[in-house]
Amino acid sequence: MCHHQQENGAGLVETQYFTSTQPLVLESGSVLPMFTLAYETYGRLNAHKDNAILLLHALSGDAHATGRHHPTDRKPGWWDDMVGPGRAFDTNKYFVICSNVLGGCKGSSGPTTVNPETKQRWQVDFPVVTIADMVAAQVRLIDALDIAVLQAVAGGSMGGFQALQWMSAHAHRVKAAILLATSAWSSPQAVAWNAIGRQAIMRDPKWAGGFYAPDHAPTDGLAVARMVGHITYLSETALQQKFPQRFQQAERPQFTLHSELSVESYLEYQAMRFNERFDANAYLYITKAMDYWDLGATDGALATALAPWHGDTLLISFDSDWLYPTAESERIATMLRRQAKPVTCYELHSPAGHDAFLLEFAQQTPIIQAYLARFDCVDVPT
Amino acid sequence: MCHHQQENGAGLVETQYFTSTQPLVLESGSVLPMFTLAYETYGRLNAHKDNAILLLHALSGDAHATGRHHPTDRKPGWWDDMVGPGRAFDTNKYFVICSNVLGGCKGSSGPTTVNPETKQRWQVDFPVVTIADMVAAQVRLIDALDIAVLQAVAGGSMGGFQALQWMSAHAHRVKAAILLATSAWSSPQAVAWNAIGRQAIMRDPKWAGGFYAPDHAPTDGLAVARMVGHITYLSETALQQKFPQRFQQAERPQFTLHSELSVESYLEYQAMRFNERFDANAYLYITKAMDYWDLGATDGALATALAPWHGDTLLISFDSDWLYPTAESERIATMLRRQAKPVTCYELHSPAGHDAFLLEFAQQTPIIQAYLARFDCVDVPT
Repeated sequence: MCHHQQENGAGLVETQYFTSTQPLVLESGSVLPMFTLAYETYGRLNAHKDNAILLLHALSGDAHATGRHHPTDRKPGWWDDMVGPGRAFDTNKYFVICSNVLGGCKGSSGPTTVNPETKQRWQVDFPVVTIADMVAAQVRLIDALDIAVLQAVAGGSMGGFQALQWMSAHAHRVKAAILLATSAWSSPQAVAWNAIGRQAIMRDPKWAGGFYAPDHAPTDGLAVARMVGHITYLSETALQQKFPQRFQQAERPQFTLHSELSVESYLEYQAMRFNERFDANAYLYITKAMDYWDLGATDGALATALAPWHGDTLLISFDSDWLYPTAESERIATMLRRQAKPVTCYELHSPAGHDAFLLEFAQQTPIIQAYLARFDCVDVPT
Repeated sequence: MCHHQQENGAGLVETQYFTSTQPLVLESGSVLPMFTLAYETYGRLNAHKDNAILLLHALSGDAHATGRHHPTDRKPGWWDDMVGPGRAFDTNKYFVICSNVLGGCKGSSGPTTVNPETKQRWQVDFPVVTIADMVAAQVRLIDALDIAVLQAVAGGSMGGFQALQWMSAHAHRVKAAILLATSAWSSPQAVAWNAIGRQAIMRDPKWAGGFYAPDHAPTDGLAVARMVGHITYLSETALQQKFPQRFQQAERPQFTLHSELSVESYLEYQAMRFNERFDANAYLYITKAMDYWDLGATDGALATALAPWHGDTLLISFDSDWLYPTAESERIATMLRRQAKPVTCYELHSPAGHDAFLLEFAQQTPIIQAYLARFDCVDVPT
């Protein structure tokens, strides 16, 4: 594996592919005879192999956390402001890894990839996966990278679910966890938003029972699903700041049933862009994995789940995040304190809602840098 | 008009129809040459005709506020607990009127009724209407009932929009207003939820540009629209109380993409029931009227809009309502106080979310009874 050659020149990065040829037994009991994870790495693994940080992405994320693949890329990776030399996840110090989740559509095995047994695209024949399955696949990647213990796992939203799963099921392989805007379970309301998205997709005739041609995808269903998700990621304040004008063009109603309010046009545009980069079936798989997420809906279950953890935890939540509000982070923190485990909590002020973990790098950076500096016994790679 | 014969025997009520043959010029400039409002009345108008209360319904409501049409009706009217002898709106004292909104699908002129000029169902040829248009149509009904001044207007949610419109545009015809769980404008987030519902409907191929046969309606689109709306009417607490079990049937995941979580099954059932009673085009018209609602997004606009009002106002909001939160009622109350107008406010504790105004009759009843008792100079009809 060529995991030290992640940057090919002027800040450009490459996606790499790890294929496990050992069967993976999923939580459902189904078996994936082999699977691939797309991943990227930034920085260098040191001689002791103890400076690795695994980043875990959210619903619509991918392995491409930072930098650009091509100089002409319109946008860098999804956490570019947070990952790089001198940034929160400092690639001068750390070997940072990010992989696309199992079940995703960004290079890892999932509904858009080919079933090696049938040579056909899996589509909805791909087995339903869980957060635990996503993490079990990541463990194989970390094994292959010859990393015994990660300095840290870090993720926001569904990325936080995965980090929590590492803390619970693979505690001995992680020293510290950084959880942003996340929760130890999917509440009924969080499930409802995802379920409505799935309904929109599966009620789109073009979904065709899950077997659709790439050029005949259920784009209307996925558009509506994305619109629902998008609004849950924003706060009312963020929306009011984004749309000081009610109407997109004219100053007064045009008395039409069609889109004319600013927020309507915005949602349509966002949905169109999402359709360009995301697969509807992958949306079903990933949201279902999220909706199953139940590390600890009750305190008893959470206590049991976190019992194996003996590392250090940093929790960051945002005061305008109503999807995974601070109370959910507080539940995790309270349980860790009860178990006498080191935990640091911040509730940051931001108008950005749930999306704040993707946007508030100026606030997050000093907190994460100071937090990681506590463990600065790492050999800086040379 | 036969508005004193509203009850035909053992608590049964009848829907009546008022047709205005005078043209109605809409806010858009379009003209309805004639229109019909379905309405019901409960109690009796007194000799002075000063004991009338107009109830104003929300998005999915209708003229049928209380009682049953037939002894075998599965459910009574939408505000049955609040309207009747001895109830909050006491029909022993008051002549209570409720009409279906213009643009609706419950007997009033709207997309499902016949265009008198073409003899075809209007469908999306019906002109786009606003809250002001709905109220202008109600004024014609009140005229026809020979009521110069209403003792009160009362409504929750979009019903509150209409009540506010009465206060602003027809102030001299109302003595008191009872506003529940409402707002003086539609915020971007409130617009977004409705806009997503419209997208779901209009992206359903069966919508067919708005011209669909009744037995080939865009039921999938309307289902998704209703699911989105439904979740905005409930609080997280209400959802958690409703669904103590995550899964509908089995105790653990079935590892399927299809519905299995309790909230998913509930949403599907609610959407199916809604499809039995509501028209998708009417959903477009009514939500668009709501989204245009902007009596006063700014304090300056609100001050101007409420300037004509010289009546008394009661505001009730609910602490778990995140769609039209207490802050929106507070804005209205603050402006009324600034204008030295009598206003009484309650924020009630309820886990029910926005739907609380439909459910919390035990809390609302004494408040509304005491409030209306202030004006108890009315002649009780004999």
